[in-house]
Amino acid sequence: MAEPSGIGDSIPLDDPGLDNTAGEEFLQEVFQILLEEGVRKSTDVTQKVCDWKEPLELRELLDLELRSDGEGRERLLQRCRDVLRLSVRTGHPRFFNQLFSGLDHHALAGRFLTETLNTSPYTYEVAPVLVLMEEQVLAKLRELVGWSSGDGIFAPGGSMSNMLAMNVARFRRFPESRSRGNWDLPRLALFASQESHYSIQKGAAFLGIGMDNVHLVRTDERWVGKMIPEELEKEIQRVKAEGSEPLFVCATSGTTVLGAFDPLDAIADVCARHGLWLHVDVTDSVTWNPHKLLMVGLQCSAFLLRDSSGLLQRCHGVGASYLFQRDKFYDVSLDTGDKSPQCGRRADGLKLWILWKAVGSRGLGRRVERAFAATRYLLEQVKRREGFQLVMEPEFLNLCFWFIPPSLRGQESSPEFWDKLGKVAPAIKEKMIRRGSMMVGYQPQGSRVNFFRQIVTNPAVTRQDLDFFLDEIQELGWDL
Amino acid sequence: MAEPSGIGDSIPLDDPGLDNTAGEEFLQEVFQILLEEGVRKSTDVTQKVCDWKEPLELRELLDLELRSDGEGRERLLQRCRDVLRLSVRTGHPRFFNQLFSGLDHHALAGRFLTETLNTSPYTYEVAPVLVLMEEQVLAKLRELVGWSSGDGIFAPGGSMSNMLAMNVARFRRFPESRSRGNWDLPRLALFASQESHYSIQKGAAFLGIGMDNVHLVRTDERWVGKMIPEELEKEIQRVKAEGSEPLFVCATSGTTVLGAFDPLDAIADVCARHGLWLHVDVTDSVTWNPHKLLMVGLQCSAFLLRDSSGLLQRCHGVGASYLFQRDKFYDVSLDTGDKSPQCGRRADGLKLWILWKAVGSRGLGRRVERAFAATRYLLEQVKRREGFQLVMEPEFLNLCFWFIPPSLRGQESSPEFWDKLGKVAPAIKEKMIRRGSMMVGYQPQGSRVNFFRQIVTNPAVTRQDLDFFLDEIQELGWDL
Repeated sequence: MAEPSGIGDSIPLDDPGLDNTAGEEFLQEVFQILLEEGVRKSTDVTQKVCDWKEPLELRELLDLELRSDGEGRERLLQRCRDVLRLSVRTGHPRFFNQLFSGLDHHALAGRFLTETLNTSPYTYEVAPVLVLMEEQVLAKLRELVGWSSGDGIFAPGGSMSNMLAMNVARFRRFPESRSRGNWDLPRLALFASQESHYSIQKGAAFLGIGMDNVHLVRTDERWVGKMIPEELEKEIQRVKAEGSEPLFVCATSGTTVLGAFDPLDAIADVCARHGLWLHVDVTDSVTWNPHKLLMVGLQCSAFLLRDSSGLLQRCHGVGASYLFQRDKFYDVSLDTGDKSPQCGRRADGLKLWILWKAVGSRGLGRRVERAFAATRYLLEQVKRREGFQLVMEPEFLNLCFWFIPPSLRGQESSPEFWDKLGKVAPAIKEKMIRRGSMMVGYQPQGSRVNFFRQIVTNPAVTRQDLDFFLDEIQELGWDL
Repeated sequence: MAEPSGIGDSIPLDDPGLDNTAGEEFLQEVFQILLEEGVRKSTDVTQKVCDWKEPLELRELLDLELRSDGEGRERLLQRCRDVLRLSVRTGHPRFFNQLFSGLDHHALAGRFLTETLNTSPYTYEVAPVLVLMEEQVLAKLRELVGWSSGDGIFAPGGSMSNMLAMNVARFRRFPESRSRGNWDLPRLALFASQESHYSIQKGAAFLGIGMDNVHLVRTDERWVGKMIPEELEKEIQRVKAEGSEPLFVCATSGTTVLGAFDPLDAIADVCARHGLWLHVDVTDSVTWNPHKLLMVGLQCSAFLLRDSSGLLQRCHGVGASYLFQRDKFYDVSLDTGDKSPQCGRRADGLKLWILWKAVGSRGLGRRVERAFAATRYLLEQVKRREGFQLVMEPEFLNLCFWFIPPSLRGQESSPEFWDKLGKVAPAIKEKMIRRGSMMVGYQPQGSRVNFFRQIVTNPAVTRQDLDFFLDEIQELGWDL
């Protein structure tokens, strides 16, 4: 047997190599720091959202280097405080930068439970509670989608769920592709709208299908951001004429920037006509990310299938004999891990389950209603306030608008207007981060220059926070 | 704007929709339950490792159904207790079933911190501390591999890290494959040993390369489980003659079952001769999972590259304009998320960083040494005890052995011996789970019938636990 040099058998095995008592005391102290610095301050509107530091300064403050010797308890506790203090407070009522904003205490408790359990829901044997919980949560999500049966699995994020959808679609049409690769297949074609998430392209590249084979279908000018079914039909015809094989359509219910909903019924008709897999729909599969609007915490992404023939297992399963032994003494259909292209996975169902138990379907529904109410309120205000200009009437929770500083007002017809306006959002964003007062995203889109995208999902956000949000943009952008 | 039916504007926005005070009190109570039921009992050797329930019974005990209304605090706290009590205690000194065994309090504190921060390390903007920490931890891991420069990213598990390796190898050789897919490429060929992890096959299927194009190279009979470089050379020649294009070799340092180390130098020579990408090696890339031997917690898998030309970004990046804006006011090279095929990711570096700060490189090294000492001790005992038979001399920490019950001893030459012996490990496993006394894995391998695989990585395991481990197998298997 090989062994590290110069060790011999001098390692005493009679006593445990970990000090549980000291460890538990440390956890107690860390927990109080977490509660004070991470939870309370993160949700306290009087605190800053972030404490901006330049990378060089932050590297020094954190003393990141990893050394030979360990550090004492006080030093480590200080490090925990520093990590929390110098991080962005994503639970803050004025953090709007990403869809995972807000802090739900029940979901956080579920995350702490998950971390303490530290197991992988791939077999019933090592994760009996978590496997059954995933089964229940996935069934409930399918029920809300409108399916009485089906299959599903949690994936590390929505991009991965979308990749699972493409892979399952490929496998269903060409089961031999799993063993032989893409070479014997016709050139496959995928379709999504111009406004779809970038994970479709990333996924096509990763799966060996190729980004050029993702065909971005034009979106409607009237209902800005929606896929035009007639354009989808045309694209399918064009691609077929070129010798490619249409396989898969990803419709989007709530595009990333504009929050547009593709017209599912009309797209489903096109798909049915051509025999294509329709993802995010009422036909084949859905990616649902409760880590966004439902505030469950990163990550919680469910990939749901209508199929209940075992497609997911046949597509991804390889039946490793050290893990998925068939001679176990219990029902091995509960060893669900082989349905995933991953091996070990995180148990992302528990935190959603505990939150659901805590507030019920009704409570989750109320949060969604509140998010709509916040958007309606902001919409009214944006329309009323001088200098704010709507990009489009929101269809969902995405409120997209420009702020036009006084210096640019009335110059909409000048040739430099849009160029100058495009620099306003980044400048306001820099100011708000340096001040630490709030965070919100901006981006250009198509021919439109940079605009803000506000999506209020956190139920802790009040009318006062929404007023502050617009006031602050106005104040920071006033002199630009 | 669309809105849920029947809501109107009756939602009051003046008050927060979350009760922070009640939430914090709930977290306090959950934390005490976690500490008592999840941490203390999980690490207490006098407790059961698991409390086995049949799925039907467990479903009832847990009352899994998700209903319309939420539940009160006491009920939820009881649910937290039940989840912990009915789950497998992976932190227990007698849980040996998976490589993620053991509970390190510092790493757990890091995980709690990560969950509280709830952000994605894709941009410096929303995760300044975590992005810099990942940079530091990845650099340190590369340094230990022997590289002074390079690149890397954390992935959700080792399977995904291995897929990243295959994808980067494909992209480096055929940059156009990213946009055009596999069709214009020659049929690619991947190589790994017969003993390699199943993620290579899963990955090949997922990436559109196909499982048939993974060529499993024969392993050595003498040094059981090691890839034979001469066989690799032969396979490469054979595959070339068939018109395929060898691309990638995955060497394994510590195979899943036997713990064998492929001979890297000899394999590297073969790869250099044919211009192939060598993964897990001293040449191109490495998958390193600190969530196993280093006990960091699920998941922590680093994909390390020697390349420092930006290959990872060119291979996976698509530069989404709503996230990776180029007009930010800071150095956007710190927005590392585009290097991954994922969008949102978990911040898996923090927990390793805090553990490393707590015990230092020296402390991590001592754990590895202790694991070797435990294996040496068990090896001696297995050789000394009647009825225990070694599968092979361990090269690493994997101790593989059969227990031969008295009824089968001396019958090694009978034709049914191996058939009967193959049923012994599953039967002992069932008994230990029903008793809840310990957990360890078993599997067949090649022509060998089911045997136990013991890998002691948890430093909390004492000599007494190791003696108990062998005594218990003996006791449970005595009457078979």
